[in-house]
Amino acid sequence: MSGGAAPRPLLYTCAGSRGLRATWAAEEAGVAIDLALLPFPPRFEAPEYLEINPLGTVPLLVDGPDDTGARMTESCAIAHYLATRNGPSDLVIAPGEVDYAEYLDFTYHADATITFPQTVYMRFAIFEKDKGFAEAGEAYARWFEKRLVKVEERLREREYLCGGRFTVADICVGYALVLAGRVGLDDRVPQGLRDYRDRLTARDGYKRAVEREKAGPQALG
Amino acid sequence: MSGGAAPRPLLYTCAGSRGLRATWAAEEAGVAIDLALLPFPPRFEAPEYLEINPLGTVPLLVDGPDDTGARMTESCAIAHYLATRNGPSDLVIAPGEVDYAEYLDFTYHADATITFPQTVYMRFAIFEKDKGFAEAGEAYARWFEKRLVKVEERLREREYLCGGRFTVADICVGYALVLAGRVGLDDRVPQGLRDYRDRLTARDGYKRAVEREKAGPQALG
Repeated sequence: MSGGAAPRPLLYTCAGSRGLRATWAAEEAGVAIDLALLPFPPRFEAPEYLEINPLGTVPLLVDGPDDTGARMTESCAIAHYLATRNGPSDLVIAPGEVDYAEYLDFTYHADATITFPQTVYMRFAIFEKDKGFAEAGEAYARWFEKRLVKVEERLREREYLCGGRFTVADICVGYALVLAGRVGLDDRVPQGLRDYRDRLTARDGYKRAVEREKAGPQALG
Repeated sequence: MSGGAAPRPLLYTCAGSRGLRATWAAEEAGVAIDLALLPFPPRFEAPEYLEINPLGTVPLLVDGPDDTGARMTESCAIAHYLATRNGPSDLVIAPGEVDYAEYLDFTYHADATITFPQTVYMRFAIFEKDKGFAEAGEAYARWFEKRLVKVEERLREREYLCGGRFTVADICVGYALVLAGRVGLDDRVPQGLRDYRDRLTARDGYKRAVEREKAGPQALG
């Protein structure tokens, strides 16, 4: 499906960012994409990126011609999109299938409820900790911890979130747990969820995605 | 499709909360749901709700039997789910249809990128403004303003976000703009987006949803 002159999707991302959800999904689905790796944060370190994505955020997926192609900036949406881009995939739960509602719900939950408080924590308690709002950041570390209850309960008797198999919902939620480990929030992550994360990050698809990000930032063309 | 003894979906929500996305989608789709209206915030004002939803958040949609039915807590996921629950609907963009990628993207963008900074602003600059972090809240008011650029550009030459028609993407993003007006952020909302919001809130489906919320909180059974 990825043959010949057909343009490949291009993902603008930063190593370790939410864009990892997209790269991971592409690896799991066997969808060939190109990466444009940017320094973090791109809106300061690569301001020319703002001409490509006025939001200044990563990831950005461009798929198809400049004027009519898809342009997506939400990592969970991109992961779902890439997983089904070349045809039906066990990586998603289809409408009508068992756990379809839960699949939808967890792919939104991963970013809107679990990742967002981590970003507030990172800003006030890490990146800008000298500005006097570290305590406000800590409030969102507690918020993050409390919002893990839904995923924790769901996985108490399940290996994966939906449909009895690994899906994009695991990619979306799994990245949020990977992020927690990287920014010092692991003491707030229950052991059951750390074990779940270990299962996810042991996958070849995850390892390949992380490896691809090691190429390092390059200049924008 | 809603006949007889079949149980109706039950939505736990608070008036004016993100649950309005779900009620609005149900009204637009003609899907009969029951509302359980709670006082805000329910985790303090109706702590028995925590037994139903340990997250303590609204909305919560319960659809089907207690042990096997769907339980959803993400407003944008619920809106999409309800819009297609009783069959195909013009309220969503189907895979393969023009703007499918954008539809996916905007339904995630609405909460993860546009609503989230408003909640941080509301907490630090309104609800807890005496705690000394009002400036941290204002930082997220500016964040909200900057993150409107994607929706603003998209609507510069379009009446609706996707597919040339009103869809759940408009419900998801539209609620974020309604919220901005309610919490004093309208001076940060460009005129084009205020006009768009006016078009959305003039719809009968929106008005019916708001009317349903006026019944006021009731005790949980």
